[in-house]
Amino acid sequence: MDRLKTEQGEDVSRITALSDGLFAIVLTLVILQFEVPNIPSSQATTELPAWLSGLYVLFFNYILSFVVVELYWVVHHTLFQHIVKHDRVRLYLNLLFLLSVSFLPFPTELLGTYGTRLTWALYALNLTIVGLLMTSVWWYAATQDLITEEMHNRIAKLITLRGLIAPVVFLLSIAVSSVSLTLAYFTPLLIVPLQIMWVWIHQLSSRPF
Amino acid sequence: MDRLKTEQGEDVSRITALSDGLFAIVLTLVILQFEVPNIPSSQATTELPAWLSGLYVLFFNYILSFVVVELYWVVHHTLFQHIVKHDRVRLYLNLLFLLSVSFLPFPTELLGTYGTRLTWALYALNLTIVGLLMTSVWWYAATQDLITEEMHNRIAKLITLRGLIAPVVFLLSIAVSSVSLTLAYFTPLLIVPLQIMWVWIHQLSSRPF
Amino acid sequence: MDRLKTEQGEDVSRITALSDGLFAIVLTLVILQFEVPNIPSSQATTELPAWLSGLYVLFFNYILSFVVVELYWVVHHTLFQHIVKHDRVRLYLNLLFLLSVSFLPFPTELLGTYGTRLTWALYALNLTIVGLLMTSVWWYAATQDLITEEMHNRIAKLITLRGLIAPVVFLLSIAVSSVSLTLAYFTPLLIVPLQIMWVWIHQLSSRPF
Amino acid sequence: MDRLKTEQGEDVSRITALSDGLFAIVLTLVILQFEVPNIPSSQATTELPAWLSGLYVLFFNYILSFVVVELYWVVHHTLFQHIVKHDRVRLYLNLLFLLSVSFLPFPTELLGTYGTRLTWALYALNLTIVGLLMTSVWWYAATQDLITEEMHNRIAKLITLRGLIAPVVFLLSIAVSSVSLTLAYFTPLLIVPLQIMWVWIHQLSSRPF
Repeated sequence: MDRLKTEQGEDVSRITALSDGLFAIVLTLVILQFEVPNIPSSQATTELPAWLSGLYVLFFNYILSFVVVELYWVVHHTLFQHIVKHDRVRLYLNLLFLLSVSFLPFPTELLGTYGTRLTWALYALNLTIVGLLMTSVWWYAATQDLITEEMHNRIAKLITLRGLIAPVVFLLSIAVSSVSLTLAYFTPLLIVPLQIMWVWIHQLSSRPF
Repeated sequence: MDRLKTEQGEDVSRITALSDGLFAIVLTLVILQFEVPNIPSSQATTELPAWLSGLYVLFFNYILSFVVVELYWVVHHTLFQHIVKHDRVRLYLNLLFLLSVSFLPFPTELLGTYGTRLTWALYALNLTIVGLLMTSVWWYAATQDLITEEMHNRIAKLITLRGLIAPVVFLLSIAVSSVSLTLAYFTPLLIVPLQIMWVWIHQLSSRPF
Repeated sequence: MDRLKTEQGEDVSRITALSDGLFAIVLTLVILQFEVPNIPSSQATTELPAWLSGLYVLFFNYILSFVVVELYWVVHHTLFQHIVKHDRVRLYLNLLFLLSVSFLPFPTELLGTYGTRLTWALYALNLTIVGLLMTSVWWYAATQDLITEEMHNRIAKLITLRGLIAPVVFLLSIAVSSVSLTLAYFTPLLIVPLQIMWVWIHQLSSRPF
Repeated sequence: MDRLKTEQGEDVSRITALSDGLFAIVLTLVILQFEVPNIPSSQATTELPAWLSGLYVLFFNYILSFVVVELYWVVHHTLFQHIVKHDRVRLYLNLLFLLSVSFLPFPTELLGTYGTRLTWALYALNLTIVGLLMTSVWWYAATQDLITEEMHNRIAKLITLRGLIAPVVFLLSIAVSSVSLTLAYFTPLLIVPLQIMWVWIHQLSSRPF
């Protein structure tokens, strides 16, 4: 098969280089939503504390976005340790994934400025899509035998399942936001116990009988 | 030949590192054209939906730019898998190519803000130049024997031809914009069938007789 | 132990790639606090010199931030030359470290705009946290045997001690700022003699008896 | 010598990774000086052409900055192909060099906005310092035997000389600007014939007798 040669190969290093660069930039752009206010310098000492204490929503939002994007990077990093070949479809799936990652600074800033149900929905939807596309990269690689051979089929399926945790939680948070927006903000914390549960199932299923 | 030693070598890894970094930044800068509006927070719930629904041009523009730049990156990535040596001329051609890539955020933002014939022409022209410079990097490498040996001369020419698809389509879109600007926006979609046709010709010409 | 396989490995290259990308961006974002003023071009020749000479605080602040972030990068670079394995905890510690690094442009710009005791405290606190998290990455790697074998236990402890120099000095500078803000600005210079002293102790303790 | 071990080694890959990232960002930040104007969309068709044609100074400035930074990157790239070891001093010299590179977007934007003698002097001075620091990295590496062995001493000196071409030309342009600012803008073009002359001398001196 000479046909696919130009988009197929065993060198995934440049794909990860582009991905890492993009992740690093998105992680750093999120800080740009903190804008220094225009206070006359004579009143800076008295007015800055009040302004700073009003930033807690933005700050919570910043930590949340950074941690979620970082978690996605960790998973992306983990998955690519097992993906040893690539073809055209996987390349384009990864680029769609990067498209969704690079969009993140916009809903993040929007949510930081206006904490409404709509902006939360946009933000959660963006993170859902990022998670689904990343999982689809893995799912495609696993079913097309682009991964390392020692990876068992059952483990590959478990990893796909794990990739769905974050998207499902973010979709859930959109539903929650119609009841209470504050509750929606804390819904992503569900990812932690679900991940722990996943590790527990993973261990159980890896145990010899 | 000691003369060219300082600009000639077999290590192209730093060139691709700089290119990947630049691509990652340009891909991410495009999102910065989405600016959060200044709406009093009391009216955010009622006014944000209207503002968001007015963003569809910017959004289409964002997807288009991202996908085109990504496609250029994929081709750049593919070409460099076959380029194994570099000399001074190829180095400078690649830097001119990067110059044209780094210029992209400006016409992109201009087009996103003012959808006129002039801004479309600037945008399409920029993308044409990017494509032509990238193809010239390849063409130079192919004719100067800087590519892998197993690459047939005929295939190398076909790849040059492929690199001209996007530039020609973008030049065409400038002509189209004088008839209808909306039509010009959709002209880049022509790249898809033309690429498929190219793959078809490629397969045909790789077939043994 | 199959359990930790997905987050554990001997390849630390992508972690350093993400870290380097993030450091490069933070180092470059610091320059964005220099904003070109709005002076009518007819008065530019007469008014620019005065405006420029008023930038010395910002300029001092820029050099200080750049040098401190660079020093942290040098230490990070040094530590990772001895860290040869990674596990889940070290991965997350490093990500927390990156979170604190990526936050830096905000207090830096705040300090550059308003030179008050509060903004100095924020800035120094951010740099303290960066230093503590970096040291904890090292300390964890050293105690969990993720480092090269030829590294002596005593040397590993000395390196932990060294990582505490900058955080302690920055904490001290917050105390100093309650007496004199100008003095607080110059407190970080203490890092230089302390580092030299550390090298001196290091040499002494490496000497055979 | 155990002392310098922590800052000394044979792996220069992370240093070049940080440098490439920084170069890529600085190259891309230069485009951010092009700001989209605030024209009512009804007048965009009639007013944009005039606005665009007034951008030629900014455009010339952009090309100049990009090309000069790229040339510095090419030289940096070339030098590091011959530098195979590093120690503490070279590491800090390289970081000072990066400090000067990361400062570039500020004088570039200042010059693009206000084309006065003062802004030209700042801009040219920044580029002079970048060139001098880069040459000092090389000069230090060459005299401290951190470079490849097959590099002749005479060639190493010639390369140092070459690194001084751009700084000298930029210093000259500051002097020229006191006579005519327009002439100063074109002074950097002198780099081209001087580089060609250098290659000619290099060839001559590499010729066997």
